[in-house]
Amino acid sequence: MPKISQTGKIMPASPIRKLVPYAEAAKKSGVKVYHLNIGQPDIHTPENALAVLKKYNGKVVEYCHSAGLETYRRALAKQYQTIGINVDYSQIMVTFGGSEGLIYVLMSCLDRGDEMIVPEPFYTNYNSFATMAGVKIVPIKSTFESGFALPPISEFEKKITPKTKAILISNPNNPTGYLYSMQELMQIRDLAIKYDLYVIADEVYRDFCYDGTKHISVMQISGLENHAILIDSTSKRYSECGIRVGFVVTKNQDVLDTIMKFAQARLSPPYFGQLIGLESINTPKEYFDEVRTEYVKRRNCLINGLNKIPGVSSPMPKGSFYTIARLPIDDSEIFCRWMLETFRFENQTVMMAPAAGFYATPGLGKNEVRLAYVINTDDLQKALVCLAEGLKEYPAKTI
Amino acid sequence: MPKISQTGKIMPASPIRKLVPYAEAAKKSGVKVYHLNIGQPDIHTPENALAVLKKYNGKVVEYCHSAGLETYRRALAKQYQTIGINVDYSQIMVTFGGSEGLIYVLMSCLDRGDEMIVPEPFYTNYNSFATMAGVKIVPIKSTFESGFALPPISEFEKKITPKTKAILISNPNNPTGYLYSMQELMQIRDLAIKYDLYVIADEVYRDFCYDGTKHISVMQISGLENHAILIDSTSKRYSECGIRVGFVVTKNQDVLDTIMKFAQARLSPPYFGQLIGLESINTPKEYFDEVRTEYVKRRNCLINGLNKIPGVSSPMPKGSFYTIARLPIDDSEIFCRWMLETFRFENQTVMMAPAAGFYATPGLGKNEVRLAYVINTDDLQKALVCLAEGLKEYPAKTI
Repeated sequence: MPKISQTGKIMPASPIRKLVPYAEAAKKSGVKVYHLNIGQPDIHTPENALAVLKKYNGKVVEYCHSAGLETYRRALAKQYQTIGINVDYSQIMVTFGGSEGLIYVLMSCLDRGDEMIVPEPFYTNYNSFATMAGVKIVPIKSTFESGFALPPISEFEKKITPKTKAILISNPNNPTGYLYSMQELMQIRDLAIKYDLYVIADEVYRDFCYDGTKHISVMQISGLENHAILIDSTSKRYSECGIRVGFVVTKNQDVLDTIMKFAQARLSPPYFGQLIGLESINTPKEYFDEVRTEYVKRRNCLINGLNKIPGVSSPMPKGSFYTIARLPIDDSEIFCRWMLETFRFENQTVMMAPAAGFYATPGLGKNEVRLAYVINTDDLQKALVCLAEGLKEYPAKTI
Repeated sequence: MPKISQTGKIMPASPIRKLVPYAEAAKKSGVKVYHLNIGQPDIHTPENALAVLKKYNGKVVEYCHSAGLETYRRALAKQYQTIGINVDYSQIMVTFGGSEGLIYVLMSCLDRGDEMIVPEPFYTNYNSFATMAGVKIVPIKSTFESGFALPPISEFEKKITPKTKAILISNPNNPTGYLYSMQELMQIRDLAIKYDLYVIADEVYRDFCYDGTKHISVMQISGLENHAILIDSTSKRYSECGIRVGFVVTKNQDVLDTIMKFAQARLSPPYFGQLIGLESINTPKEYFDEVRTEYVKRRNCLINGLNKIPGVSSPMPKGSFYTIARLPIDDSEIFCRWMLETFRFENQTVMMAPAAGFYATPGLGKNEVRLAYVINTDDLQKALVCLAEGLKEYPAKTI
């Protein structure tokens, strides 16, 4: 029997994959499971966007341009311009979600064995994309105590080697909810220019900024024109994860030309996703106001609730819809499994993502979980009660 | 300015990319260009398939299962069973077209530096996918004279080294239209078992077999259960290239488990493409009968027409909708460009794909072009007249 490749062997499995069978077994036995583990929002996709499906009257669903429909890219460029990102449509590539974009960026910009600095905890699939491209992730710890702010730039500098080619940030951050400040972005800029590094910014949660904060894109930082690469996506913005439409945006023409070769090999991005994405641009402002209001309510409900549970703490995130919470336990993998397998409160339980999967440094995050506030506040309240009761009952708690 | 990676630099550009500006310039100046260069059919997508868009009444377009919607995979398994491919739904992974599937198969099954034997000429994007995975393509020449039949198995055996891990075939073949016989597939099987190689078969043109021939899938060859990997796609079957839905099918559980890790990293395949794909399964048999009749008409028109032009010859392909034609010229790249840039017949010209891009061995295919018969016979006739007139006028012709 032929063997699996080394890349295939080291390709990381999803960190919550191990928990899925326990969640499924719980549900099969009639237990209500509150999903705080995934970033699938329950928010409705804008009606105007879905209406385009009913209007479609084409006869042949053809390949489109490998960089995406030109009408769509032109509309995206205009949309970026309204938020102060001055790009031409030719500087936008439409990809299969942000994921494909990031894979091609890594393959285009980093050699195998090259290093990329990433503040940890970070979105766990970065490990997978880095594995595909043969890139080594060099983590720098952002601390719970600082609310997961950018680690001191001196820490970055210590990790820079001749193989360092890029810094990757997620802003607002998944999994921490942290929103980087202008000052922090300027520090990254200075470092990138000093060492000639790419700055890859995953800004797919850009529209989810709270408390009057304003998102600053890496594309708005002057001096980074040849260094900055934006990874973007329609998935969370319009709650249309299933259409699989994301973008790579950069002013670096060499990077665009190179990614185009990858894009041409797979022919074109999905047509109907692009139609929906195009119309999504016309979604009225009220939609986002409502969504943001709802998320602030959910965030406050979750974070305040967490901080009231004895031994539990969480920073108050300014963006995205995640937080990292610290629990009075030794090993969140075991705790999360126990919650699904053993614990029941009024026939309910909670599914959470153990945070260790979001850290590259072994041992970190063991007493932390990532929670997504993508369910309504009634359910969040019930989930919080479950978590509190679970922690009371859990035999291995540390308080 | 940060540098492009080595992979990015060696990533091949589309072989017709260089010709595109000339075609565009011709069209801008009012010249009618007949596109024989691409595999974008003009056949209508089945109406029943597109009708699902009008019926969609979901509220949130969510991520689906990373392997694809279970309903869809179950329906696909049934469809495969009706054509003698006995697979379970869990042995099917839905991917972004056949392209993504093949990328993940190469990354899962072959180590970097490993070798994969591919009869040439072959689908040019195999080069790109191999580059992404760091796999070396070892070409074996199939000859124009044999109609591009499988090269003698002794030729394969000569090329096998400790690094050989797979054989990749396209059946029916793009670009040659050749349909492999049971005898040829059995020879591949014996070789694969003897040397423990994966047999990866790109069968996306499976439904395009003519003259009463019957397609034999690699999944139907007994003894290859752990070796055979099928790459499939909805694109050509239902003329729905733009939905970007393909599949990987295999009975090798290790391969499935490994590909699943790649699939999870990019979350899920496109939802609306899958909805259309699912309904496409119910397309009435008459649709395919009509399509096949139309393609046979086109094929006969093109091939017979080509063979009537002095100095031009083409085999009569049994499958797909391509052929490789030999022209009385020295360098088809120069000729194809000249046709677009300089030659006009009644204000018309023809765009063709130089065949050298489909060969890995330097120097091969220089007097050949790949032609796709995806336009109607009236236009094909006009394109043939253009080609004949062009060859009369071309200064560098060899007869």
